[in-house]
Amino acid sequence: MGLVVQKYGGSSVADAAGIKRVAKRIVDSRKAGNDVVVVVSAMGDTTDELLDLAQEVSPFPPGREMDMLLTAGERISMALLAMAIANLGHEARSFTGSQAGVITDAVHGKARIIDVTPGRIRDALDENAIAIVAGFQGVSQTSKDITTLGRGGSDTTAVALAAALGADVCEIYTDVDGVFTADPRIVPSARRLEHVTYEEMLELAACGAKVLMLRCVEYGRRYGVPIHVRSSFSPRPGTIVSGSMEDPNMENAIISGVAHDRSEAKLTVVGVPDVPGKAAEIFEAVATAGINIDMIVQNVSTAGSGRTDVSFTLPMAEGATAVNVLTAVQERVGYDSLQYDDQIGKLSLIGAGMRSHPGVSAQFFKALSEAGINIEMISTSEIRISVVTRVDSLDDAVRAVHTAFDLDSSEDEAVVYGGTGR
Amino acid sequence: MGLVVQKYGGSSVADAAGIKRVAKRIVDSRKAGNDVVVVVSAMGDTTDELLDLAQEVSPFPPGREMDMLLTAGERISMALLAMAIANLGHEARSFTGSQAGVITDAVHGKARIIDVTPGRIRDALDENAIAIVAGFQGVSQTSKDITTLGRGGSDTTAVALAAALGADVCEIYTDVDGVFTADPRIVPSARRLEHVTYEEMLELAACGAKVLMLRCVEYGRRYGVPIHVRSSFSPRPGTIVSGSMEDPNMENAIISGVAHDRSEAKLTVVGVPDVPGKAAEIFEAVATAGINIDMIVQNVSTAGSGRTDVSFTLPMAEGATAVNVLTAVQERVGYDSLQYDDQIGKLSLIGAGMRSHPGVSAQFFKALSEAGINIEMISTSEIRISVVTRVDSLDDAVRAVHTAFDLDSSEDEAVVYGGTGR
Repeated sequence: MGLVVQKYGGSSVADAAGIKRVAKRIVDSRKAGNDVVVVVSAMGDTTDELLDLAQEVSPFPPGREMDMLLTAGERISMALLAMAIANLGHEARSFTGSQAGVITDAVHGKARIIDVTPGRIRDALDENAIAIVAGFQGVSQTSKDITTLGRGGSDTTAVALAAALGADVCEIYTDVDGVFTADPRIVPSARRLEHVTYEEMLELAACGAKVLMLRCVEYGRRYGVPIHVRSSFSPRPGTIVSGSMEDPNMENAIISGVAHDRSEAKLTVVGVPDVPGKAAEIFEAVATAGINIDMIVQNVSTAGSGRTDVSFTLPMAEGATAVNVLTAVQERVGYDSLQYDDQIGKLSLIGAGMRSHPGVSAQFFKALSEAGINIEMISTSEIRISVVTRVDSLDDAVRAVHTAFDLDSSEDEAVVYGGTGR
Repeated sequence: MGLVVQKYGGSSVADAAGIKRVAKRIVDSRKAGNDVVVVVSAMGDTTDELLDLAQEVSPFPPGREMDMLLTAGERISMALLAMAIANLGHEARSFTGSQAGVITDAVHGKARIIDVTPGRIRDALDENAIAIVAGFQGVSQTSKDITTLGRGGSDTTAVALAAALGADVCEIYTDVDGVFTADPRIVPSARRLEHVTYEEMLELAACGAKVLMLRCVEYGRRYGVPIHVRSSFSPRPGTIVSGSMEDPNMENAIISGVAHDRSEAKLTVVGVPDVPGKAAEIFEAVATAGINIDMIVQNVSTAGSGRTDVSFTLPMAEGATAVNVLTAVQERVGYDSLQYDDQIGKLSLIGAGMRSHPGVSAQFFKALSEAGINIEMISTSEIRISVVTRVDSLDDAVRAVHTAFDLDSSEDEAVVYGGTGR
């Protein structure tokens, strides 16, 4: 009994059978006494098909028109979903992002939500209808043009709507059972987490866990929206993302999981003059090109050489751009050469309880050492330790750490988490 | 040099190659110094594919959601067209029906345009952009829901926009070269008409000529928008629809063409009591079911029987409905039986000059008689004579009449039309 926002991704509504299955699930929630708002993505391959069409007519399509094109995808899925619900005897009304009051800035392709004014959604709920909202899209406050929110945009739409409507929970339906202690494809004994804090989920998402996008979790944390990540293919509960590790009532697990990421590369600037300001010159050039860098290591200067090496990791997709911008400033910076390495993997151990348990780092490095894993870079936060390894030893490293921290599932799946509100 | 509204149908933008071809044509018109507004339909089979999807999820989809679904079609084609134009170095902005200010009533699936407020289109033109507008769609004045205009809706969008913008001409691009004196598939010697009046075009459209829909011509006549029907596959001029036959400066051709229609059926109510009010009861029942009837014939009562037969024609698609509603009132009306005949064809001779040339009817019936065509029903207007024949003699009838009125093309294609304004 309450107000529930549910989000279904493209794989859940890939065809007519999927749409009917999702419709039944929505109606079940309605019958249980909930007011239901549904956010839906485009069907399965629709977006890829539209991108192919765009490529056929233009190599560099304008962003405004690309957004107009891609938003046709959710328009189709949401109308079909509303029809399928109507066929089960319940009223459903579909709304575009614009109609649902999803107001964004004007950055086509990766707009940010500025405001949500869901007057028409409230009206629909007041009239006992189920509201279906197109995910991933909004309307620019200034130009009144249609925008898209970029990757993971539908999750963000759902959490933003849940916040604006004061929903009791935002359920993100996906093709996995929730958030796991590690990727089950690599660690078959990985366990589903019943609960993680926003902070842990942010670290997991930032470190390669793909189940939720960073922006959606940030939004949930800012507005305190509990997010329930669960499977659209099973009725089992998934993982609740809620609560802060700062909450004194919340007893945090020491470790929540092991994340990994194969999508980064390492760029080393060799022979940088060891004088103040050189690192700044390098990272300014990279930042100006809009590249997000992750870990940074500066080697100790070789005695007497007056030169040092600076390494950093970045998304592999931005590697070529980074090489180009750094080559352009080589003369000014005065470095010797660049080394680009895309055969790296990143492993991260995350847990809110880590900060109060000083032995975690030692146990972590011991496990990697015993497994014979060579560590190339290290970075840490209050609740995370990350290392870079060779990509071909990444899976072994994930399994070794997962076992060392007793994350493997036993017969009793329940994980001991204290705290409230679940 | 002026403001041109161009409309391209689904067959003109069926694939990427078609979209690029249309884009080039639009840019050519822009380069010639025109402000250009383009109305576009959904690509080729898109609408049928969306209808199939709807059928898969619901046998009776709600009209509101059906309109939401179908309007995705033009969204795709208009965005792709804008991209293709941008790729040719000209700015183009696409607008949904709602963004273009196409305001309709709330009758989903066959909404009527109430008002057009094209502020954003004017802004785009003022900023030297080409405006691309989704045909077939609008937004309801009362509910703010998305609507579709029904069959031929994109033509109507184009003419309505041309009227609201005060365009110099509305060009309707199609897959034929214009309006012909008869269907060239039946009469290979049929000639293209350079010009027809709105009244003639209305009769042609009502009598089965499919090149323009009735509503679009009505709109053009009401607002005095010249309509140029032409091929999107050739640069040749097509047919201009403009001017009234009431205009004293306009010298009208006696005959503009021969139209035919195979889509009607004939329903005969046999043995109707020959007392006042019975015909009214029959046609009230049919009208209440929303069926448009066309020609009506009541036979002379057989001497002494006190009973008569009433026949009328109606769209074949509505035949079953008509039989049902008349069966329901059989007892009250007191007729004997119904005869349903879908093997009929309708032939119409149309010409604004007909009313001042009394010999036309005689010549018409003589031509049919000499060709051995049996006539089953007759109806006339000021500028039209229509007859019903067996469907299998319809083509012969069309050719006989076409030849009898000297409509076959000679070497000199020019048709003698007087008047001004072309």
